[in-house]
Amino acid sequence: MTQPGRPIPQPLNRPSFSSRGERLIGQEMFRVMDRAQALERQGHRIYHLELGNPRMAPPSQILEATMQELQARQVGYAPMAGLQELRAALAARYASYTGRPVTASQVVISPANMLIHQFLDITCNPGERVVLFTPAFPSYWAAAAHLELEVVPVPLSTRDGFHLSRPAIDSAVAAQPRAIIVNNANNPTGAVYEPELLHELATRCGEAGIWLLSDETYADLTFDRSHVSLAAPQIGHVVVMSSFSKVLSVPGFRTGYAVAHEAVIAKLALSNSTLYSCLPGFTQMGCVAGLSVLDAYAEEVRARNRRLIGTCHDRITRSGLLHGHHPESGFYLFVDITGTGLDDITFCRRLLEEEHTAVTPGRCFGDAYASRIRLAVCGQEEDVLEGVSRTIAFAQKLGGCHVQAA
Amino acid sequence: MTQPGRPIPQPLNRPSFSSRGERLIGQEMFRVMDRAQALERQGHRIYHLELGNPRMAPPSQILEATMQELQARQVGYAPMAGLQELRAALAARYASYTGRPVTASQVVISPANMLIHQFLDITCNPGERVVLFTPAFPSYWAAAAHLELEVVPVPLSTRDGFHLSRPAIDSAVAAQPRAIIVNNANNPTGAVYEPELLHELATRCGEAGIWLLSDETYADLTFDRSHVSLAAPQIGHVVVMSSFSKVLSVPGFRTGYAVAHEAVIAKLALSNSTLYSCLPGFTQMGCVAGLSVLDAYAEEVRARNRRLIGTCHDRITRSGLLHGHHPESGFYLFVDITGTGLDDITFCRRLLEEEHTAVTPGRCFGDAYASRIRLAVCGQEEDVLEGVSRTIAFAQKLGGCHVQAA
Repeated sequence: MTQPGRPIPQPLNRPSFSSRGERLIGQEMFRVMDRAQALERQGHRIYHLELGNPRMAPPSQILEATMQELQARQVGYAPMAGLQELRAALAARYASYTGRPVTASQVVISPANMLIHQFLDITCNPGERVVLFTPAFPSYWAAAAHLELEVVPVPLSTRDGFHLSRPAIDSAVAAQPRAIIVNNANNPTGAVYEPELLHELATRCGEAGIWLLSDETYADLTFDRSHVSLAAPQIGHVVVMSSFSKVLSVPGFRTGYAVAHEAVIAKLALSNSTLYSCLPGFTQMGCVAGLSVLDAYAEEVRARNRRLIGTCHDRITRSGLLHGHHPESGFYLFVDITGTGLDDITFCRRLLEEEHTAVTPGRCFGDAYASRIRLAVCGQEEDVLEGVSRTIAFAQKLGGCHVQAA
Repeated sequence: MTQPGRPIPQPLNRPSFSSRGERLIGQEMFRVMDRAQALERQGHRIYHLELGNPRMAPPSQILEATMQELQARQVGYAPMAGLQELRAALAARYASYTGRPVTASQVVISPANMLIHQFLDITCNPGERVVLFTPAFPSYWAAAAHLELEVVPVPLSTRDGFHLSRPAIDSAVAAQPRAIIVNNANNPTGAVYEPELLHELATRCGEAGIWLLSDETYADLTFDRSHVSLAAPQIGHVVVMSSFSKVLSVPGFRTGYAVAHEAVIAKLALSNSTLYSCLPGFTQMGCVAGLSVLDAYAEEVRARNRRLIGTCHDRITRSGLLHGHHPESGFYLFVDITGTGLDDITFCRRLLEEEHTAVTPGRCFGDAYASRIRLAVCGQEEDVLEGVSRTIAFAQKLGGCHVQAA
């Protein structure tokens, strides 16, 4: 391309977007990050607690294996369902978890966020219902909105730390949805659900012909390691998904996977091919190496998270104005800001502008949570602690004003 | 995850897929690659001419910059619209192409195949029409089918080497579509279109309120460098997209981009965030380095392609049974197999099974092309030449049988 294009006669108006285009929500925490990075470009130091963006050094094996592939110029297309090596390694891992045979043809590789979208896309028609147990990860809402599904929120009780309950399962099934998404261990609450209830949910979905997506992204980050996977690819209606992002501290690798019946996996592979062809092979080979050290590395991550969450939770509780239950997994704190007198959007906006601390508004997890914020405490320790201190100080300043104004 | 999950009582039937799920086509050349790789796992040597998977060594700069990022553990989330550095570098490049200002906010980073899907998703409602000039790249068909759009094929004439023509533009606009996709330089024909006609197409789309996607993935691979970009982000209705895959020989990087009005770019960024959050930052930094040497490297790629395509085209023409025009760009040969007496699907299947040579059936580019195949001649030179020889020998064997049978 060497010669400049001729000027097209005149600027013309943009035609309107499609209704699907108008239904795109995205993920609020990425918009918060964008605004935070704009402040950084202005020279400000920002404390990032908005995204679950782990800053622990990943296992050296995953980086080295990826670099080795690049060194060997392995930069061609990969199979649409993912690299055979990675699918086979994951199949072996899940066979060992579940005590049941799992084959490579029952595993597909795709970014975890994409898999949420792909699952809903291949299972639900426009106008059909999908149940989310709330609070629920923003991508579920965004995918459902984009695909024109009706979300039926089934709130989990604050009183018992947002755990899955039998009444919640009853409500979910009674809504007669096409699909249910269950996120265990949970983002943003950190709750880990009872195995009996999870199996009841899976069984009742099967009886009622309801698809079930079990998002197990934080499975390996449960503090007491009590997590049980619903993976059972013999069963046609359950799709388990997870990601390497959180457990190997490589969100930038954009690599996740699903384990399901091979008819479902074949459909998801076709979706990969239709949407984006395939994922890079070199990052997938990195993940193969990462898998071989995952258990030992996850132990370190859990220990760090348990300690850091404990410290942050204690500080928040002592503040008197902010409240939250103690998570059982992951690295999120879902904090009640009612005492500050501000709604979540205003709180988050002002916290970023005034205190240079980025957090996520609660209503991204459901309209009912406008008096909450989510803190991701997975960054550099000193940054996390400073961000939490600033959040508390900001709340106390507001709380004071609020009391004075009352 | 340490304890095995309890067995779920009994295997249950899989609920049916959604109608969107049933409309997934995927890309046939990836299925061909899958079958070819299965044969490789059985120990066969396969000659790969099915995918445009360049095997030239990519510029060392792109690999080194990517490895440097990995070494520095830059493996966190990146902005949903793409890295600012890459968007700015592309904006500067397009400003220089077009002689008009282009800013980073008029560029979004996303895999090129995904951008096809995203463009149609944000612009077209189910049931609306999209025009493809045929033969047309399979992903356009796959995305349109998945999004429930009506494809109006406007065939380009074989007689003049599949070039864009005024009658074709008339037919396209007369179909009153919501969007038109033009692919210049073209895959699979290698045709490069007249600048006057391209600008007429863009202008008439603007007048008629039609979205125009200009897929310029092979722009830098035109042999006489006569390509003109339609990039003009002041204009609301034209979206230009391209990819680093072919011009930097890094299809595994899965990195492409679009240049358009900033309202369109913001919408595409929201689509990124909704679908898959973001792309890896380390590969994007690699592409920044790759961009800085793109022009010199593309010169080498063009020289190689021109020579190799010339050799292959000559051999095919001399075969007497296979025919095709001489491409002006890229690395594809779109070959007429009528003389063999076989349809494309049967020809391709048997060529793979009997001669271990993988090529793509013509009908992937439109139903009218069932008597053609596409050869991608971008692999290792000796493999390409052997694959072409085997294709010719196979055709001659068939042609002989065919003549005997007649």
